[in-house]
Amino acid sequence: VVSGDTSYTGKVDRQRLWDRHLTLAGYGALPDGGVDRQAMTPADAEARRQLVAWASDIGLTASVDAIGNLFLRRAGRRDDLAPVMTGSHLDTQPTGGKFDGAFGVLAGLEALTALAEAEVATTRPIELVIWNNEEGCRFPPTTMGSSAFTGHLPLDQALDARDRQGIRVADALDEMNRRTQVADTRILGGSLFAYLEAHIEQGPRLEEAGYPLGVVTGIQGLRWFEVEVLGTESHAGTTPRANRRDALQAAVTMIHELAARCSDREDILRFTVGRLDVSPNAPNTVPARVRFTIDLRHPDAESLQHYGDLIAPLCHELAGHCTVAVHEQPVSQPIRFDADIQRLLCECADSCGVPYQLLPSGATHDAKWLSLIAPSGMLFTPCAGGLSHNTRESADPDDLARATQVLTAALKRLANDV
Amino acid sequence: VVSGDTSYTGKVDRQRLWDRHLTLAGYGALPDGGVDRQAMTPADAEARRQLVAWASDIGLTASVDAIGNLFLRRAGRRDDLAPVMTGSHLDTQPTGGKFDGAFGVLAGLEALTALAEAEVATTRPIELVIWNNEEGCRFPPTTMGSSAFTGHLPLDQALDARDRQGIRVADALDEMNRRTQVADTRILGGSLFAYLEAHIEQGPRLEEAGYPLGVVTGIQGLRWFEVEVLGTESHAGTTPRANRRDALQAAVTMIHELAARCSDREDILRFTVGRLDVSPNAPNTVPARVRFTIDLRHPDAESLQHYGDLIAPLCHELAGHCTVAVHEQPVSQPIRFDADIQRLLCECADSCGVPYQLLPSGATHDAKWLSLIAPSGMLFTPCAGGLSHNTRESADPDDLARATQVLTAALKRLANDV
Repeated sequence: VVSGDTSYTGKVDRQRLWDRHLTLAGYGALPDGGVDRQAMTPADAEARRQLVAWASDIGLTASVDAIGNLFLRRAGRRDDLAPVMTGSHLDTQPTGGKFDGAFGVLAGLEALTALAEAEVATTRPIELVIWNNEEGCRFPPTTMGSSAFTGHLPLDQALDARDRQGIRVADALDEMNRRTQVADTRILGGSLFAYLEAHIEQGPRLEEAGYPLGVVTGIQGLRWFEVEVLGTESHAGTTPRANRRDALQAAVTMIHELAARCSDREDILRFTVGRLDVSPNAPNTVPARVRFTIDLRHPDAESLQHYGDLIAPLCHELAGHCTVAVHEQPVSQPIRFDADIQRLLCECADSCGVPYQLLPSGATHDAKWLSLIAPSGMLFTPCAGGLSHNTRESADPDDLARATQVLTAALKRLANDV
Repeated sequence: VVSGDTSYTGKVDRQRLWDRHLTLAGYGALPDGGVDRQAMTPADAEARRQLVAWASDIGLTASVDAIGNLFLRRAGRRDDLAPVMTGSHLDTQPTGGKFDGAFGVLAGLEALTALAEAEVATTRPIELVIWNNEEGCRFPPTTMGSSAFTGHLPLDQALDARDRQGIRVADALDEMNRRTQVADTRILGGSLFAYLEAHIEQGPRLEEAGYPLGVVTGIQGLRWFEVEVLGTESHAGTTPRANRRDALQAAVTMIHELAARCSDREDILRFTVGRLDVSPNAPNTVPARVRFTIDLRHPDAESLQHYGDLIAPLCHELAGHCTVAVHEQPVSQPIRFDADIQRLLCECADSCGVPYQLLPSGATHDAKWLSLIAPSGMLFTPCAGGLSHNTRESADPDDLARATQVLTAALKRLANDV
């Protein structure tokens, strides 16, 4: 691989990149500085419209596919070749921040803007993509747009998903496209030469190690469980302990023991009980039913299997007088990013003079699906305290600009690789 | 005490009493036969309106006080004397049954109906009372109406309590009174000569011992705690265990250890965590806040003190990286019912030929507060399996009728005691 001239990366404009983050954060702004821009809401559509306007200033052409992924294309000298793609998502959690998703989109836009300003042409086309509904908090599942694009989620099923108000994706999508005013459509899916995604880390590792950049080695696997514990509702004042079938006490025993068993010395396993609902949930009634979720992640497939397989037997063993049912959602296996792409990203970081660390991703990203159809990779920037999915999510303007320079260099290299 | 003629107790109508239970159970009926008639809901108001209609058929006059207690008064020959009072409550838990509360109200109505049909006049007036919001599940605290009536809960504080939708008691009360259509108001509080309350046992003792009636010796003490655990919301996939401030894991550790410490060999102590709310309660977010309640009961004041005093220190000790606040509601000391009233109830049971057992109450009742201002007592009937606060709560029509005969005899004796 030839290192080549990287002077065009000097066109990456730190201030413009930062200002655009603040402008986008105005769509769905929360009073405390956070962002509520859930997928296919009016705020999401308005943010897309702003992005299309910026893209049109540098001559990119816009189109949407059947699941609402938005593409902004820069032509190549040989425009029939498979494109290099980069991007992320614009939707957020209900109490999200300014950077999760938005940075990957704006970094891609800034890279294409820098190439345009430096008048650098590439052999392959480069496409900036905004994956629809990455968060999945309004319409499950997560990474809807990228999993439909790569053929892992049937389009009909995605279009038929509903939010808690009963609104279908198909209808929300029509409304978003009407607001966004992108007329051109394109066929769902297609081949690409490579995929790159920039993102805030959403974890504390880069900050703690003092690196401004991470080259991502892979994404940890995820197993998701719902546990339902059934007891008998009875009076808190009169029912002797020996006669109780207390669903909450049984659930507490299970969670307490599971947390102890899922406590690896290396602190790599992620074990989270994030949702727990008690019924009837009255102070003076022994609970009859408890439902809770377990979110379990590990970068190593065997470890994920091992820990996940502890859950159901342990819940049954600890149910006492209650009964318990454990349901598992489909498994997401750990993935490793393409070794050549990792090497390329390291070289580009070196050539831009940006220190970096290799690290796995704790969170799931659209890049997970893309890695199954094309060589893919990710760049991470630090975020203070590792906070994301939080209105206090933060990033440093210098870190964002440096990562964008590396992305620009890598996109140019890939787009000239024929 | 003179035994006297009890032929008027023959006017107690088993079928009418039973039918009225089924009619009341129609207000707030659940599909499985249970009742959801929480305090000051439309269903609660409609049940009251039905009761006022029945009472008006036998010439009782209705009035409400400032906290929504409803009084149905039968005049005495000397109507200026302090009344004898009987009653209970009509509100239920969210998944309650047909008898908890309703029986005490309908037994009082049936007793007054029997006296009316037998044309028995009494020297003192007799008042049937429906205490507002005994359950306290919508608006804490429990026994709101009777504790305000007896001056143990400041009226302003009671009126200012809010449900989880933020609705104030004061506003819910206005709406209930409008629906109930009782125009007459009366001053909050006042002196009474004696108070009697009939209730289902809500425990398994009478059924297990084979007695149709219990004469209640007292009520166990209650301490009620709300524990709030504060952590930090963070991403389930990226936040290492060492960096987490997981409010749910901290709460689970506390509850697990408290349950172990509050496990007395004699199984007399009652320890219940009945309500637990997680925030933000999303499967892939480490919980930032958990609130849970502890309901702790024991018939012995010293034991109650001992176990209750363990709670706050243990929660603080086990909070880990989280912070915790423990709020205690005012303590309810164990109480013993008036010895003369207990003796009178035993004599009336004997004269009616109803076998009985003396026993303490596991549950709190409005009679607890009344016992602090007037000689008071309670009668219990068995309930299958000791189940209450449960849609499968049951009672036997014969047991209800026999207890009501005893109540009728006791009310007449007290109302002629000058």
